[in-house]
Amino acid sequence: MADTLKFLLPEDRIPKAWYNVAADLPEPLSPVLHPGTGQPIGPDDLAPLFPMALIEQEVSQERWIEIPKPVRDVYRLWRPSPLYRARRLEAALDTPARIYYKYEGVSPSGSHKPNTSVAQAFYNREAGIKRITTETGAGQWGSALAFAGSLFDIEVKVFMVRVSYEQKPYRKALMEAYGAECIPSPSMETEAGRQILARDPETTGSLGMAISEAVELAATNDDTNYALGSVLNHVLLHQTVIGLEAMEQLEMAGDYPDVLVGCTGGGSNFAGMVLPFLGKKFREGTEVRVLATEPAACPTLTRGRYAYDFGDTGHLTPLMRMHTLGSNFVPPGFHAGGLRYHGMAPIVSHLQELGLLESRAYHQNPCFEAGILLARTEGILAAPEATHAVKGAVDEAVRCREEGVSETILFNLCGHGNFDMAAYSEYFSGNLDDRDYDPEALEAGLAGLPEMG
Amino acid sequence: MADTLKFLLPEDRIPKAWYNVAADLPEPLSPVLHPGTGQPIGPDDLAPLFPMALIEQEVSQERWIEIPKPVRDVYRLWRPSPLYRARRLEAALDTPARIYYKYEGVSPSGSHKPNTSVAQAFYNREAGIKRITTETGAGQWGSALAFAGSLFDIEVKVFMVRVSYEQKPYRKALMEAYGAECIPSPSMETEAGRQILARDPETTGSLGMAISEAVELAATNDDTNYALGSVLNHVLLHQTVIGLEAMEQLEMAGDYPDVLVGCTGGGSNFAGMVLPFLGKKFREGTEVRVLATEPAACPTLTRGRYAYDFGDTGHLTPLMRMHTLGSNFVPPGFHAGGLRYHGMAPIVSHLQELGLLESRAYHQNPCFEAGILLARTEGILAAPEATHAVKGAVDEAVRCREEGVSETILFNLCGHGNFDMAAYSEYFSGNLDDRDYDPEALEAGLAGLPEMG
Repeated sequence: MADTLKFLLPEDRIPKAWYNVAADLPEPLSPVLHPGTGQPIGPDDLAPLFPMALIEQEVSQERWIEIPKPVRDVYRLWRPSPLYRARRLEAALDTPARIYYKYEGVSPSGSHKPNTSVAQAFYNREAGIKRITTETGAGQWGSALAFAGSLFDIEVKVFMVRVSYEQKPYRKALMEAYGAECIPSPSMETEAGRQILARDPETTGSLGMAISEAVELAATNDDTNYALGSVLNHVLLHQTVIGLEAMEQLEMAGDYPDVLVGCTGGGSNFAGMVLPFLGKKFREGTEVRVLATEPAACPTLTRGRYAYDFGDTGHLTPLMRMHTLGSNFVPPGFHAGGLRYHGMAPIVSHLQELGLLESRAYHQNPCFEAGILLARTEGILAAPEATHAVKGAVDEAVRCREEGVSETILFNLCGHGNFDMAAYSEYFSGNLDDRDYDPEALEAGLAGLPEMG
Repeated sequence: MADTLKFLLPEDRIPKAWYNVAADLPEPLSPVLHPGTGQPIGPDDLAPLFPMALIEQEVSQERWIEIPKPVRDVYRLWRPSPLYRARRLEAALDTPARIYYKYEGVSPSGSHKPNTSVAQAFYNREAGIKRITTETGAGQWGSALAFAGSLFDIEVKVFMVRVSYEQKPYRKALMEAYGAECIPSPSMETEAGRQILARDPETTGSLGMAISEAVELAATNDDTNYALGSVLNHVLLHQTVIGLEAMEQLEMAGDYPDVLVGCTGGGSNFAGMVLPFLGKKFREGTEVRVLATEPAACPTLTRGRYAYDFGDTGHLTPLMRMHTLGSNFVPPGFHAGGLRYHGMAPIVSHLQELGLLESRAYHQNPCFEAGILLARTEGILAAPEATHAVKGAVDEAVRCREEGVSETILFNLCGHGNFDMAAYSEYFSGNLDDRDYDPEALEAGLAGLPEMG
């Protein structure tokens, strides 16, 4: 099978432990700070929202953290995910590069998100929690948590930004299919929601408002916790199954990547793929280039400031040191809803500061174009977010052709676009613009960064 | 791995030949008749529409027909598809039965349809054909053919029933992503379309009208052929990769089915799974029960007449002997668009006449209910069509519980429901009714059957 396309692993090769990069970082992460005291936060500060097992993972220095058997049992429904050699894409690009992609769209909700939602649901269940609240924008995270809740018999309540709730009724239907409750935010169910609606009954909502509602319910109910789909260390930790499996699959292929490509919103799918490879670099010196691709309309890594900032627009969270456009930054409209976050995971930000990754910003039309090329060669229609990774891989493959070098490129195809056809329709209609971020919005966002003592 | 969930085969175990049940049938199929002469049709009658390779397959008596290497090469993008043991569904049903399902939703367009669209595109390409026309209702077949066309560099033109075209813009976007042209039917591009529009400019269209347009273009252009997504012998032949792989995967599991369940519209996904098992029964006497499930609103196998009838409402096709509700029968509205066909594949109809399969009709609400149970246990959201198979498998598993018998049930999960969320939304809203077919419509349909000399 010299020309194998799919590198499959049996389900007993699902990783038995997640990889924790904190154990191998050349310099430690900056601490997370309490916004009131300016001092590092402790476990007690997070206990109203998260179970202790996740809080421990958030600060753990252990290199390997065992994946509980019930979590691996659920992973088996779709993991190990396939690694593909993109031979038809290579041929279309006439490139000497070998292009591989790890495909996370095979999960029940269609993206990498269940890698962490299942783990989070499990630990909450172990802690006796009956209900998890969360927010969702485009709906990808909400449906992943809904799926996980259905398997661990945990009630899931999703606050969905009102404008998305109205524009994307199918995502709501998917959450309902998994038994979750999905309500438009702001709502009358929380004090935060009622206050917002009293001021502005016609508001379209925002992720910041939805976070406020979800956190309020979790903080004020003992049987209720809160869950986040990206950014935090434990979320990135759970995603490392992606890279760990990919390493083993590339070994089957007798290959090793010269360059890794992933798209970055909050940073979790990207980190999930690259961290195990960077760990090998830290421990064994195995070189690998790492490329993060992001939308030009929300250019966190390429234009953001590395600073302490809030994780949410409502300023309820602790302060994290990260690349940020400012928690008040609002990007212009574009279709990769999962890449609209103002900040970046502290781990990913730290790696960029250490010079361990490159970042590149793309406009949406060239990303859709790359997505169409992938669909017409490999068959898979990528999520708009994932097309940013496709575009990065295509550009690297073109560079290889121009330089006449036969490198190995691995990219993470973090989800399918089946629920994003409205975006493709608009692309085909020719109505998608390629607006950059608004420089004034960025200036205002950065000006709003918290003063640090 | 005594408790394995997924039975995976490497890509070199994709079947090398399709299984042709005609070689093993205890009684031969009735001939297809020319509507003008009443005599069996010959290859020349079909040559304006299909390449000779497919016409030969339509009448072949060879047991095994080699799958060309370029077709197997494309199959490798998603085949062999996984076979799952549905352990969580079994637990939820508290059944002693072992439930397996073959999952065809892993294909690029999300259903079993590419198993034949890829083969049809290949043979047309070999015959020098530049363009293929087809019709589509719900859009599943149109997108599968669009995908196949993109890989064999064949232009695909899809006539989509106007009302569906307007209600399902995302299916059109998927076809466009694969490079196909999708236009609402009736259109001004054909004589048939122009005549219909002259009579009724406001018509919503029908599958019969769309077939007329697609066939006209193919018949009047030398470089253009026509393709059909179900019913015909060669289509069912191509689908036998489903059952052939499933047999090998069940062997890995050390099991063999007592009962097979599949949903039937035109009959192709059902036949693709069951024919290889029936072949083993014919040749080796290995017993297996076979259950076809269909919608109560379009009950072809349970209420149709076994008779010669046209394949289309426009009466352009030859006459096939099959179970039919009459080519003028119009079912009431329901969501499994792929199961709305008035007839049934001649092979499937013949098997029922020989007493080799059982059929059962279901209303749509209990099918969606079974689909939700599957989603909350196995994670996969089934297409509305496929929920009819899920319902059949659930009922068999409940029977096993009641009888205290530990049988092995295998059902075909022929596609995912990601493009059918509007149907699930309506189910959750409680607005889906469980109407049967209209007895008067059936009476009229059967009264319209052609008089046979």
